[in-house]
Amino acid sequence: MLLNEARLQQVMANHGLDALVATSPENVTYASGYWALSQWIRRGPQSYVYWPAAGKGEPQVVASATLLDLLADQDVNVPNTETFGSFYVETQEGVGLDNLDQTQARLYAQERHSSAQNALAAILKRDGENVRRVGIDEYGLPGSLDAFQLPDVDGIEFVPAFEAFREIRAIKTASEIGRLRRVAEITEDSIKAALNMAKPGVTEIEMAEAFNIETIRGGATPVLYCIGFGTRTAMPNVQPSGAVLSEGDLIRFDAGGRFKHYRADIARNAVLGEPSKKTRDFHRALQLGVERGIEAIRPGVKASDLFDMVVETVRNEGIPHYKRTHVGHGIGIDGYDLPILSGSSQDVLEEGMVLCVETPYYELGFGGLQVEDMIVVRSDGAETLMKTSGKLISI
Amino acid sequence: MLLNEARLQQVMANHGLDALVATSPENVTYASGYWALSQWIRRGPQSYVYWPAAGKGEPQVVASATLLDLLADQDVNVPNTETFGSFYVETQEGVGLDNLDQTQARLYAQERHSSAQNALAAILKRDGENVRRVGIDEYGLPGSLDAFQLPDVDGIEFVPAFEAFREIRAIKTASEIGRLRRVAEITEDSIKAALNMAKPGVTEIEMAEAFNIETIRGGATPVLYCIGFGTRTAMPNVQPSGAVLSEGDLIRFDAGGRFKHYRADIARNAVLGEPSKKTRDFHRALQLGVERGIEAIRPGVKASDLFDMVVETVRNEGIPHYKRTHVGHGIGIDGYDLPILSGSSQDVLEEGMVLCVETPYYELGFGGLQVEDMIVVRSDGAETLMKTSGKLISI
Repeated sequence: MLLNEARLQQVMANHGLDALVATSPENVTYASGYWALSQWIRRGPQSYVYWPAAGKGEPQVVASATLLDLLADQDVNVPNTETFGSFYVETQEGVGLDNLDQTQARLYAQERHSSAQNALAAILKRDGENVRRVGIDEYGLPGSLDAFQLPDVDGIEFVPAFEAFREIRAIKTASEIGRLRRVAEITEDSIKAALNMAKPGVTEIEMAEAFNIETIRGGATPVLYCIGFGTRTAMPNVQPSGAVLSEGDLIRFDAGGRFKHYRADIARNAVLGEPSKKTRDFHRALQLGVERGIEAIRPGVKASDLFDMVVETVRNEGIPHYKRTHVGHGIGIDGYDLPILSGSSQDVLEEGMVLCVETPYYELGFGGLQVEDMIVVRSDGAETLMKTSGKLISI
Repeated sequence: MLLNEARLQQVMANHGLDALVATSPENVTYASGYWALSQWIRRGPQSYVYWPAAGKGEPQVVASATLLDLLADQDVNVPNTETFGSFYVETQEGVGLDNLDQTQARLYAQERHSSAQNALAAILKRDGENVRRVGIDEYGLPGSLDAFQLPDVDGIEFVPAFEAFREIRAIKTASEIGRLRRVAEITEDSIKAALNMAKPGVTEIEMAEAFNIETIRGGATPVLYCIGFGTRTAMPNVQPSGAVLSEGDLIRFDAGGRFKHYRADIARNAVLGEPSKKTRDFHRALQLGVERGIEAIRPGVKASDLFDMVVETVRNEGIPHYKRTHVGHGIGIDGYDLPILSGSSQDVLEEGMVLCVETPYYELGFGGLQVEDMIVVRSDGAETLMKTSGKLISI
């Protein structure tokens, strides 16, 4: 399963919580395997996962009646469900149902609460006699934690827990690492497919289309595709436009799709023709920053020390004025998980973290260069998820 | 521009608001044209748009320093910006900058606030002497409206305004309708491309891949692609699996991409081979429900009357046990805009609304059938955005 249950229990204990409630799409899917479509593509639809501390009850999913089919059809690691809302799915007497339809029928037949909040209240009333202090992921609630009143549930203190979920998600399970490895591979394949189109006259939009089609073919969906040419590469978030590729132009990718809900974030650079000396020299410094950073990664290393080392490397190797707020971050079901590799970070690297290590450089009138690799922190150092090096590609 | 400014002012007046603040991605983009990447793909990043009532000041964007490039490169209808946060982009003395880079340089040179909240506080202190009651879209805030404290801004009352934004967005501008027309067309093209693959042995995943690739080719991004075969079509949100298409199987699409941020939501049905009598009869009833509903659409029609009429039509034409909670909804930058075509809806149709009219029917052990069309409410009736009819397609 995706959830690191041991760490969930540890974080609850550390924060003095009797239960945790996931409410935002990333945390609901992470805590249960349940991907509740409408919650992912809109603001407003509610789905929760309730996880009590060890010995204080059983985890539960709170699911809308409109989304019970997905609960039946997905690999969900929380077997108990409370449902809410109105929805009509028919069954005809005497018609045989396969396993999937039987599971759906059972879910549709459950007594329904009038709202997600009422369903959660019912769980707390029934199972929560030892549950007094509840951490609730405040980012998925409808508007306001203080406006989140549960009926007939007295004496429960709700505290914000979005950050507690980030803490839990920082150490990946094997299943998560498998997905991250695959989405990294799909993203590298997509960069390759996009660069296969590189020739004078091609537009950023055309190259992004090739990138995204390869992402779809790999089984992922497009999320991040900052793809630009020439001086437009100086835009950190460059969005594909009608700008046309010319001889000598830089091409920068900062991109990654989503595979089985897990994100990639990888950066590579190419030049159509011969790179200038400045491009070569700056790129070399940035690549060395990432490479030496990755070599230094071990459990126990302070994120802030890694940050200092990477920035120093880039400065010493060719960009003396190099400045950054961070040189990387965790990645998982969210594109920016913990830890953050910044100068002010209090995070310490741990085995099982998956990190993006990156050294972007943006200069108006020149362009942007960026090397970004994905790695797993193992007991003896970093294991790369990359099949390609971050070297400057000359086409 | 996307924003219906007259309606924004009208809704503010109706609710007694001196200003509105957009905070969630849909409302930020709608109110300004500004698409702030990280806000759309993660929970947490903050971007706001401040809109005062007429005569009470100028609208402002609150933008993170990490996303100013997008502000410079996009068609944004709010010219004033407050920025916050740390970010480094270099410029070299004496290097000529094009217009885009000059705009970026100007934005990067602005004095920055330490947070989005502080930037908003600065706007209210400077421009808000007549601003006392502020509607704030509570869905994009970091956790809690009550926890949203602005420093040094006294005497301002914040009230939740997510619903006020939905009210504003219900009546589309010409620019929005143009995007909705295009995304509807892309979605119909994608259904056609997917059905071109229909033959025994193809999987749902393969058909969804063809659907999504055509969506990308059309210039949109995949969002909704419920595509299923056989009895799996009874799942309202069926997600493409390895299930294989066989002779006689139903195929159901409930799908739509996002084009320039605007959503489609269209449903069509096909059968590989000859449909059964039940499939033909039920589908005919559902299609008549949608068609007669669309014929009845006029400004001034109550959504609840339309609901009753559509449900009655389906019952009278062949599914006597037909039950639904709604038969459609608005669509725009969100997939479910106002109005909601339900029995309990208080909404009344108005010129300029864009609606999905739909009659889904789900029966376990049989399958799901669903006709869903997109239309614009014009002064003299509904203008369809569809190029295809909702007829049952036999392949």
